[in-house]
Amino acid sequence: MGHEIDLKNYEIRTDLVLDTIENNEMNIKTDTYNDGNVKVTKVNVDEDSSRIINKKVGNYITIEFDDVTDTENKNKVEVVFVNELKEMIYSLGIKEDATVLVIGLGNAKSTPDSLGPKVIENILVTRHLFILDEDVSSGIREVSAMSPGVMASTGIETVDIVTSIVDKIKPSLLLIIDALAASTIGRINKSIQITDTGIHPGSGVGNMRKEISSDTLGIPVIAIGIPTVVESSTIVYDTINYLFKHISYIKDNQNMNKLIVNRYNYLDKIKDKDLTMEEKKEMAGLLGQLSDTDKKNLINEVLNALNYNFIVTPKEVDFQIERLASVISSGINRSLHKEEV
Amino acid sequence: MGHEIDLKNYEIRTDLVLDTIENNEMNIKTDTYNDGNVKVTKVNVDEDSSRIINKKVGNYITIEFDDVTDTENKNKVEVVFVNELKEMIYSLGIKEDATVLVIGLGNAKSTPDSLGPKVIENILVTRHLFILDEDVSSGIREVSAMSPGVMASTGIETVDIVTSIVDKIKPSLLLIIDALAASTIGRINKSIQITDTGIHPGSGVGNMRKEISSDTLGIPVIAIGIPTVVESSTIVYDTINYLFKHISYIKDNQNMNKLIVNRYNYLDKIKDKDLTMEEKKEMAGLLGQLSDTDKKNLINEVLNALNYNFIVTPKEVDFQIERLASVISSGINRSLHKEEV
Amino acid sequence: MGHEIDLKNYEIRTDLVLDTIENNEMNIKTDTYNDGNVKVTKVNVDEDSSRIINKKVGNYITIEFDDVTDTENKNKVEVVFVNELKEMIYSLGIKEDATVLVIGLGNAKSTPDSLGPKVIENILVTRHLFILDEDVSSGIREVSAMSPGVMASTGIETVDIVTSIVDKIKPSLLLIIDALAASTIGRINKSIQITDTGIHPGSGVGNMRKEISSDTLGIPVIAIGIPTVVESSTIVYDTINYLFKHISYIKDNQNMNKLIVNRYNYLDKIKDKDLTMEEKKEMAGLLGQLSDTDKKNLINEVLNALNYNFIVTPKEVDFQIERLASVISSGINRSLHKEEV
Amino acid sequence: MGHEIDLKNYEIRTDLVLDTIENNEMNIKTDTYNDGNVKVTKVNVDEDSSRIINKKVGNYITIEFDDVTDTENKNKVEVVFVNELKEMIYSLGIKEDATVLVIGLGNAKSTPDSLGPKVIENILVTRHLFILDEDVSSGIREVSAMSPGVMASTGIETVDIVTSIVDKIKPSLLLIIDALAASTIGRINKSIQITDTGIHPGSGVGNMRKEISSDTLGIPVIAIGIPTVVESSTIVYDTINYLFKHISYIKDNQNMNKLIVNRYNYLDKIKDKDLTMEEKKEMAGLLGQLSDTDKKNLINEVLNALNYNFIVTPKEVDFQIERLASVISSGINRSLHKEEV
Repeated sequence: MGHEIDLKNYEIRTDLVLDTIENNEMNIKTDTYNDGNVKVTKVNVDEDSSRIINKKVGNYITIEFDDVTDTENKNKVEVVFVNELKEMIYSLGIKEDATVLVIGLGNAKSTPDSLGPKVIENILVTRHLFILDEDVSSGIREVSAMSPGVMASTGIETVDIVTSIVDKIKPSLLLIIDALAASTIGRINKSIQITDTGIHPGSGVGNMRKEISSDTLGIPVIAIGIPTVVESSTIVYDTINYLFKHISYIKDNQNMNKLIVNRYNYLDKIKDKDLTMEEKKEMAGLLGQLSDTDKKNLINEVLNALNYNFIVTPKEVDFQIERLASVISSGINRSLHKEEV
Repeated sequence: MGHEIDLKNYEIRTDLVLDTIENNEMNIKTDTYNDGNVKVTKVNVDEDSSRIINKKVGNYITIEFDDVTDTENKNKVEVVFVNELKEMIYSLGIKEDATVLVIGLGNAKSTPDSLGPKVIENILVTRHLFILDEDVSSGIREVSAMSPGVMASTGIETVDIVTSIVDKIKPSLLLIIDALAASTIGRINKSIQITDTGIHPGSGVGNMRKEISSDTLGIPVIAIGIPTVVESSTIVYDTINYLFKHISYIKDNQNMNKLIVNRYNYLDKIKDKDLTMEEKKEMAGLLGQLSDTDKKNLINEVLNALNYNFIVTPKEVDFQIERLASVISSGINRSLHKEEV
Repeated sequence: MGHEIDLKNYEIRTDLVLDTIENNEMNIKTDTYNDGNVKVTKVNVDEDSSRIINKKVGNYITIEFDDVTDTENKNKVEVVFVNELKEMIYSLGIKEDATVLVIGLGNAKSTPDSLGPKVIENILVTRHLFILDEDVSSGIREVSAMSPGVMASTGIETVDIVTSIVDKIKPSLLLIIDALAASTIGRINKSIQITDTGIHPGSGVGNMRKEISSDTLGIPVIAIGIPTVVESSTIVYDTINYLFKHISYIKDNQNMNKLIVNRYNYLDKIKDKDLTMEEKKEMAGLLGQLSDTDKKNLINEVLNALNYNFIVTPKEVDFQIERLASVISSGINRSLHKEEV
Repeated sequence: MGHEIDLKNYEIRTDLVLDTIENNEMNIKTDTYNDGNVKVTKVNVDEDSSRIINKKVGNYITIEFDDVTDTENKNKVEVVFVNELKEMIYSLGIKEDATVLVIGLGNAKSTPDSLGPKVIENILVTRHLFILDEDVSSGIREVSAMSPGVMASTGIETVDIVTSIVDKIKPSLLLIIDALAASTIGRINKSIQITDTGIHPGSGVGNMRKEISSDTLGIPVIAIGIPTVVESSTIVYDTINYLFKHISYIKDNQNMNKLIVNRYNYLDKIKDKDLTMEEKKEMAGLLGQLSDTDKKNLINEVLNALNYNFIVTPKEVDFQIERLASVISSGINRSLHKEEV
């Protein structure tokens, strides 16, 4: 089977537009505001920037926060999420009584991938009441919801299930929830991305086949994603970069033998430490001199050669996913129905 | 809170005795045999080697295999597991009608940690039939089973739950199943360790407080463990080591610019590649020259400073855990009861 | 809202053709054979009998057994099930490499209704391997599987989900699993019905709208059903009938005051006891004199007036469903794939 | 095995004190108040009434409501529950910083019996934070929680698990949650009973062996129970009684042939209809003339002879249990911790 692997293919998949923008250090205009320690960044990707960052044209809202395991914090995040989701729904011209289908992607049996199915469990579903002609309060919208499962369990491509259901029941809006991969460990379970560009499994612009979007479905699609894992290559890459800075810092401070650090000052000190090429060579030889992209490619190459198809996730992921699913499901219910639900 | 972190504490926890022996490259006597592509390694740790490798005195059996998602393979592993478990039970002098308590440690809600609870779901429990004085077939042993949950969910230390149940129902043997951390990615979901030394959460010999063993419980304890995760530091460490070999290999083969490798020959070529110190310096500067232990400590130090408390697990962990839980539960049932169950 | 209830509508829904035939005491030809204590009854409903018993034209196979919580028994039932399912697949002209979609109806969260979803969890799904062009062994068929959930959770009619998936992926055969309602308590979790007539939620022939069958889908449909509940009216009706016989028996045997019975002889004695109308009047007055149909209607009327929408299920239903799901999923895997799976 | 069944043993088990009082129509003093459509009944059973109704001496609070699937209603019920639970905790002299263990009885895999385990999933557990000496806010109490499972799964009597954990961790208060059996269908999922007398599986006063109470554990025990099922005999008994009234009503109203009823007026009309013995004989012969107790015994006798060990539960039990579990877990969290959680 000895097929060849071409490093060109190892472009890191980055689900979050914010990751891409930061990594590319390019000049894309963003609007940001803070609500307490919740930070919101809005990006409108136009034709030009789409070509540069390989992201679909459309609107991307990222909500960043520290922690939703604290209840007070969680409530704040939910309020911001509701406001932003409502605004995006409104800006897409969706009427107050338009029907909505909510789809939760992912694998209910794999904790970091269970966000979508867990959200669906708590969506207030009402479509059957309208069908059965029951008396529904005026503030309640017609909503249906479904978890299509994953291809390894169903044998059916998710996009095929979603497309056929949409064709059948013809909702006016599709909300689709998914667990994403982040390109830095620091963002795991600490951000929500809302976008009107849909879901693009695999890679970026161009591959329309598996895309779930208004282009492929003919109705507005809002995708809500939370990064819950990183690829194993990401943690290696991130750690190596910090290692260089760390070694350099220790050397500068003449405590190479002591190797005792104070955790809380340390991070700030090394985070933005820039190394010269000479320092990098001294620290890490050939490895240190590689460009970021080459380094990433090399790490991917090695992990793939070893057939190490791993994901990295926080130890307490079950609790975090539960809380995040609660924010999203409760937030969607509050955004779709007027009446308190 | 700026507490200091002493690198001395960052000894990597190694749950598998085989990891420890291999990593220490010391001369501990092992017996091995192969059954098809299933490999069994038996180690008797005596007083002397206990001091060297910091593992409890007792017997350790490790069953290594490639894959249990293939049914034929899975059946082979189960046969070997049953033989080894039966032998250990017999060698501990446990009688055929002695009562057994099976405990599954871990968190049912976190896929890689759900092995223990999943095993318990399929243990053939019979103790209540004996209590209720029902007519039980002669080949059936008195067995009870329980998943005590995890401290984050119960607020109670697992060892306290297990101890109090054992004190109450006084079984003649305790079987305890747990998901372990491996010290190399290559062993994840590919080995089963059976030991009569019990479970020692935290660290090695000496800290008896949280240990679940015959020393603390007064009855024989057989622990069955499968490594299902590695700490994030492990994948970084493993990958960096392979990176050095990889860069060196590419350089030797003059294809630094081509960067195209054939996956299947490649691994064998680089796996045992030993680098000279000069090569290491060239490859990776200061980083390359560190000893293995220093390198591990440094990586841990950086990840801890960043507060990155992550685990690494295969993408298809849900399916693997399901199959492994089936091997263990079915194997235990066949080992404990004579009659086909 | 005071809408009127017309007793005419309270025809008892009978999912099992065997129930219908027995209840109607009509002369429909059946073929039966016994394999140990497993009994198989085959009915071919033709145009004439279809009109009489209000069941769709087609083949119905019912496998009756005592208990699948005993492993030996369970294995016997599975062998019979595999033989009958294979034969029906063959008789429908389905080729060995024809693609199959398996659908599990029901509510995973409600134990007696969770049969379908539980079966799907253990179906060997392979369709994605064919799509991804992986190397699949020759004895393995292309199979996909899905649990569409229930309308109360999704807001979408199950038939709409199934139809749209079938239209999209165009399998050559649909297997559909469902938990049924029985019309006698004695059959709960003790029979499997296999039919090539599909699923007809609600009522019998004529209402094609919600039917899942070859007529509506254009491909062969085999429905596999197990009665796991009875309506609350059924247990009332059954018990009242036994009550009459019981009172009469006690009176005949002059032990009205003793009221002590031997359970194991008793059942045989009263089961086929026929009461004269005079006896019935004495036993149970007006109530006793009602025809069976009137009695059923009355009971339904009362329960509906009280808004008692209840189901009756065995106490150990969780264990029984688990075992039955194992019989069906393992049996389907063995019927669809040649290679041992 | 032909063992004899003595009808004397068929005393109906009634978990709710309110059922007992109503059924016995005796003169026990109760305090009641209404909060909207939530009704609270408080009973203090003293030595005298304990002998009469066969219930333990102590306080029983019953909260009755219509429906918790409506969110507004659910919130009202929760407020009342919190007030009553707090008051009982206070009246038992439990201090604000006293430690609490919450136990959820029942079978997570059987929907109507899953109330206890579901409540435990959402209890705010903090005991480990105190053990680990973490910084806990002042309003937070030390709480632990556990689901011991059921004997059919563990082989261990629940009371043994609970007792040994209590002995080990020595909480100051035990809260124990359980799904109960009701003695009338009308109360299913529509009442919460709070009592300081503990749990008495099996039958009433006298059988201390399996009791979980302050008498057996030496610490205060508050039991919180919700009736989620009735025995199958109950629905038969209830329906037969309504049948008599129904037939009589129809006869009185000369519409025996019409058999069309208006559901909403009907229930009120027949509910309190008392029949004379003569009417009863006419309606239902010997059956009609039996005393209530004899009728219940007869029904039990018949169902037991038929080996019909069934439970009756609402069709939408999964949704109701979810909502009730939310009321109880959230209510307990608000009662135990001062700070909003």
